[in-house]
Amino acid sequence: MQAYNFCTPTAVYFGKGKINVLPEVIKKHGTRVLLVYGGGSIKKQGIYQKIHELLADCQIYELQGVEPNPRITSVRDGAQMCKDHNIEVILAAGGGSVLDCAKAIAAGAKYDGDPWDLVLDNSLVKDALPLCTILTLSATGSEFDWGAVISNLETNEKLALISDHLFPAASILDPSYTYSVSAYQTAAGGCDIMSHIFEQYFVLGSSIVNDGLCESIVRSVMINTKKALEKPDDEQARSELMWASSLACNGICSLGNTPSPWVCHAIEHELSGYYDITHGIGLAILTPRFMRYSLNDSTVKRFANFAVRVMDVTPNDDLYSVANEGIDRLFAFYEEIGVPMHLKDVGIDDKHFEAMAEHAIKFAPLDMAIRPLDKDDVVAILKDCL
Amino acid sequence: MQAYNFCTPTAVYFGKGKINVLPEVIKKHGTRVLLVYGGGSIKKQGIYQKIHELLADCQIYELQGVEPNPRITSVRDGAQMCKDHNIEVILAAGGGSVLDCAKAIAAGAKYDGDPWDLVLDNSLVKDALPLCTILTLSATGSEFDWGAVISNLETNEKLALISDHLFPAASILDPSYTYSVSAYQTAAGGCDIMSHIFEQYFVLGSSIVNDGLCESIVRSVMINTKKALEKPDDEQARSELMWASSLACNGICSLGNTPSPWVCHAIEHELSGYYDITHGIGLAILTPRFMRYSLNDSTVKRFANFAVRVMDVTPNDDLYSVANEGIDRLFAFYEEIGVPMHLKDVGIDDKHFEAMAEHAIKFAPLDMAIRPLDKDDVVAILKDCL
Repeated sequence: MQAYNFCTPTAVYFGKGKINVLPEVIKKHGTRVLLVYGGGSIKKQGIYQKIHELLADCQIYELQGVEPNPRITSVRDGAQMCKDHNIEVILAAGGGSVLDCAKAIAAGAKYDGDPWDLVLDNSLVKDALPLCTILTLSATGSEFDWGAVISNLETNEKLALISDHLFPAASILDPSYTYSVSAYQTAAGGCDIMSHIFEQYFVLGSSIVNDGLCESIVRSVMINTKKALEKPDDEQARSELMWASSLACNGICSLGNTPSPWVCHAIEHELSGYYDITHGIGLAILTPRFMRYSLNDSTVKRFANFAVRVMDVTPNDDLYSVANEGIDRLFAFYEEIGVPMHLKDVGIDDKHFEAMAEHAIKFAPLDMAIRPLDKDDVVAILKDCL
Repeated sequence: MQAYNFCTPTAVYFGKGKINVLPEVIKKHGTRVLLVYGGGSIKKQGIYQKIHELLADCQIYELQGVEPNPRITSVRDGAQMCKDHNIEVILAAGGGSVLDCAKAIAAGAKYDGDPWDLVLDNSLVKDALPLCTILTLSATGSEFDWGAVISNLETNEKLALISDHLFPAASILDPSYTYSVSAYQTAAGGCDIMSHIFEQYFVLGSSIVNDGLCESIVRSVMINTKKALEKPDDEQARSELMWASSLACNGICSLGNTPSPWVCHAIEHELSGYYDITHGIGLAILTPRFMRYSLNDSTVKRFANFAVRVMDVTPNDDLYSVANEGIDRLFAFYEEIGVPMHLKDVGIDDKHFEAMAEHAIKFAPLDMAIRPLDKDDVVAILKDCL
């Protein structure tokens, strides 16, 4: 195992009705609150009303309308509001995009310049406002990690903002808030969680515990995504998906593993940077092609292990056939849950592939992937996805 | 899944040479340090000297000679030293006993009365000194959790002290510090880690992720304990054992599971409370007997799953035979790594069984076990161990 540092100071409050801890967790930090949310689904669900009821004696300012693939423009607006109104604590209620936007706002509020500087150079983040979250979509894991992904549509860039200062202080995880998530977003969320695991799992150096944790998270997400699609208010399924989301992106699944450059995320951020597609869908399209492209004599054993342990492929001596069968089954799973599995299905052609590949290798060390990748490799994977 | 709250604020520094972070993690809290350690093995390994070198500009007071199954008398001494010398931060270097003692000292230093009061009523812990740890034995998980176990030889009591205030602020986990651990203590440590998992895993309500994590920890400990016994400086094996130890007792393996009263720990604390035996050995002796005693129509499926998934028993329709085969293999594993598997082997007869059983059910809700247990059941399990 390799050396690592690890600390997740976020306090998780998991279960139905846990929103009632809100006064306690917010007022620890102050009473001047910026509430950050998206398109209004929290109003339909009564979460918005409940927040105002529970925090009746706080001064609540609101930033609403945060986009999927949250934009730097929203971050700028939010950071400015924090400065204008002496905000003491941020409350984000929504899915990963809302939480990511709120994290960038929390950092931007403590920074004198343009928040986009922080995205381009994460080391500039020296402090952040405390952040509490209420999760309404199981997908990104933002509720339990130290990262955010912010898009800049002017420059077609979608980049990560990562800093120890960005762990939420508290995250309220009530699985019943995800019962009304659409089938499409439920599927996309499952794909996102699975991808977080794949990015950490497809490496050459790991441990028995990390592998077991990763494999059981993927198994759980596959089983429970199907259950949640069949019965949207399946409490056990929604619960397992929510906690899987939190564990999958927090680093705990790969502590001590050899490093991974998160290949599919790096490439997907190009796709959604240019085309604003749903993140989890882009990841699902890319993953089987990335796996197939990465198969070689050094890596085939790892992919074959995955096929046997997670996709229930019967082991045999022909590791390539085992690995390929695992990839086929994964592809079939994505189709089964309704993911459009070709880029052309989501309106993307090969026009920007060269530029995307160039940008991807600039921002992620793809030469450290399980099969090292250069620009031409990235273009080839993208073409396989058409 | 059931509701839960979860937060582990401990910062982990894992890997060879990580002791070099010591000045940074200690001086965050102050420069008046109480160093707590055991019998002097940290001197043989050079850890003691390294601490003094790294903290040359701190004022270091020392409490040495902490016992296995740490005693309230040491806790009292340490708490008094903290008060006398205005200690700002405690540094514990050793195995779980040293860490547990230091936790109780940290709480005792902030309490006006006798520290034993805190053990008898954990709710009296309102504050504690910050604690940093350097681990030298993979076993208890104290380096990454909020509990301690303290013995009172005057009253034959060994009881848990649990409080959110007792998470270490930082834990330095250098697997190379465990290379010199004796075969017997390596085996006992492995048994302890496995037991922490069993206590959480043998319940009727769980999740796919929790089960996968628990199963892979047990698998890892079984494989890596044998490797470490064969080759004490096997870096990968010692690393996997060390991180398994931290994960196994931190609660993360059973979040949302139905509750468990930690049956074997409750009974083992009676054994070592009376006889001062090695904790992991007592647990190994008890575990297969507890499992066999708990087999019934409600529980057999759970034990059969364990047999198949962890002990590689071939599944068949006769769940009892599958479950029993799994228990037999676990028993054989304990014997293989050198654990004396009968109480008489460690000098214990049935003299105090009645009193032990009475005390065990008084302090742990054993009626909530996977097979609910009363006093007579505990006596029966103890007799099976003779």
